[in-house]
Amino acid sequence: MSALIAIDWGTTSLRGAQLDASGRVLASRSSAQGILSVPTGQFEAVFQAHFGDWMAEPNAWCLISGMAGSRQGWQEAPYCPCPADFNTLSQHLLWLQADRIALVPGLCCSGQDALQTPDVMRGEEVQIFGALHLAACQSATLVLPGTHSKWVQVQSGRVTHFQTFMTGEVFALLSQHSILGKTIDLNGAFEEAAFLQGVDQSQTEGSVLHRCFAVRTLGLFERLSPAALASYLSGLLIGEELRCQTALSPQQPVILIGNPALTLRYTLALKHLGMACQSFGDEATWAGLHALAKHLTKPR
Amino acid sequence: MSALIAIDWGTTSLRGAQLDASGRVLASRSSAQGILSVPTGQFEAVFQAHFGDWMAEPNAWCLISGMAGSRQGWQEAPYCPCPADFNTLSQHLLWLQADRIALVPGLCCSGQDALQTPDVMRGEEVQIFGALHLAACQSATLVLPGTHSKWVQVQSGRVTHFQTFMTGEVFALLSQHSILGKTIDLNGAFEEAAFLQGVDQSQTEGSVLHRCFAVRTLGLFERLSPAALASYLSGLLIGEELRCQTALSPQQPVILIGNPALTLRYTLALKHLGMACQSFGDEATWAGLHALAKHLTKPR
Repeated sequence: MSALIAIDWGTTSLRGAQLDASGRVLASRSSAQGILSVPTGQFEAVFQAHFGDWMAEPNAWCLISGMAGSRQGWQEAPYCPCPADFNTLSQHLLWLQADRIALVPGLCCSGQDALQTPDVMRGEEVQIFGALHLAACQSATLVLPGTHSKWVQVQSGRVTHFQTFMTGEVFALLSQHSILGKTIDLNGAFEEAAFLQGVDQSQTEGSVLHRCFAVRTLGLFERLSPAALASYLSGLLIGEELRCQTALSPQQPVILIGNPALTLRYTLALKHLGMACQSFGDEATWAGLHALAKHLTKPR
Repeated sequence: MSALIAIDWGTTSLRGAQLDASGRVLASRSSAQGILSVPTGQFEAVFQAHFGDWMAEPNAWCLISGMAGSRQGWQEAPYCPCPADFNTLSQHLLWLQADRIALVPGLCCSGQDALQTPDVMRGEEVQIFGALHLAACQSATLVLPGTHSKWVQVQSGRVTHFQTFMTGEVFALLSQHSILGKTIDLNGAFEEAAFLQGVDQSQTEGSVLHRCFAVRTLGLFERLSPAALASYLSGLLIGEELRCQTALSPQQPVILIGNPALTLRYTLALKHLGMACQSFGDEATWAGLHALAKHLTKPR
């Protein structure tokens, strides 16, 4: 297999890595030029500006995952419905230049509710398959924390179902733009005890819409410090995600994919509730795109 | 009883009414001069500017409820712990001028959770007792929808427990400042069917942090119009409050207190789930302060 240029082109960031035939990262680059900052019709130009030198090398080719394949991106690569595996992705690549540049499609699934509310992901599917590859694992629950956290079920190498939680965005809105912002100090150090208090609180009956108001009253009655309140709110919201994972068990491995500060919080919360987990970062993206490339080029 | 000046001085508004001995409203005034816009030390001056003429009448006296009695207000009238009734309030008035101007205290209660998280209200307690008086009722579940909705249990004239939900604030944040704002049209007409779809959806297992994301995907897949999405989100959030009311039954009356646009939504949601209710507006405040005044002046 010739050298792959692996790219994750998201809403607000653009990251790329040059991989050798074994998947080792030879070089990597990142910029803030996510798809939101690319003018209409300028995707190829921005791509060339960032990766033109890499693509000029003999036999270079490129797989691009993330929002670049959305309606607002370079070109729309329609979502593949779940259950979906590596084969599904490789069969539905959108080739922008034959055998040279392809967009990886995202996944969609139907909610298990009356409205069968759809859910979607773009970019995470590559991280999921990458992390499974790194963990040498075919069935797991995966969590991709962030602005919009994803909880994903994988069985025998197939993504069977997933759910998005607006956890990160709600944390930012509540802590910066709601009345809770008056008592919270977001610049303080992370306080594990307060975080776990929030996690415990979130496992009780009732609603997160009520529980969050405790950030105000615990501050008002000076029962938690402004810095502790930020950790407490984080525990309440991450704990709310965990409360809904009825399929979790100490036997089923949980795999976290994200930045270390965030996966640490999920690790603490999961351990607190008796669950083990392992974490991956950026390497899951490169591993996923490399494995997809290998899958594409293997003799069939 | 001599003429009462009844005042509700909240965070962002100041409302007052001149009542006759029977509680009839002779005149009313309102302004945007809530406590947040009153400079330090200027509460008496602002009060005089708004109600000095009414207070100049012979034997005029005044009861003030709401945030004017908070730490950021005119003077702090400490919260009365629940259970609390009319007697509790009248015994804990904070008299700013003897027999002439008093602040009504708010209520606090301990959460029924591990942390016994406190909850608080200021101003709503007067509306609650006023609405019970108007409904000729001693035991009920009351709902005061708004930025921070209150669900209140009253038994034999005593507020036994209440919970605050950040529903109104979360709706505003999600619809105006989150990714959901991209697909929602807040200026469209209210769509009852979409609202009730949201209410139904909220009664299922899982988390509101996940359910809200459907506002994005139902828009993305063009299953609901931008105006319908606003009503749907409203149904999801109001429905989340209802989901937690395990003590509700068709036998127990529900009393709503708030502006008509908001109480209408709760009425629709409650009826949809088989519950009856009745609604009151501003009159609950005047009735509550009038009844409190009568209670204070009756021969003991």
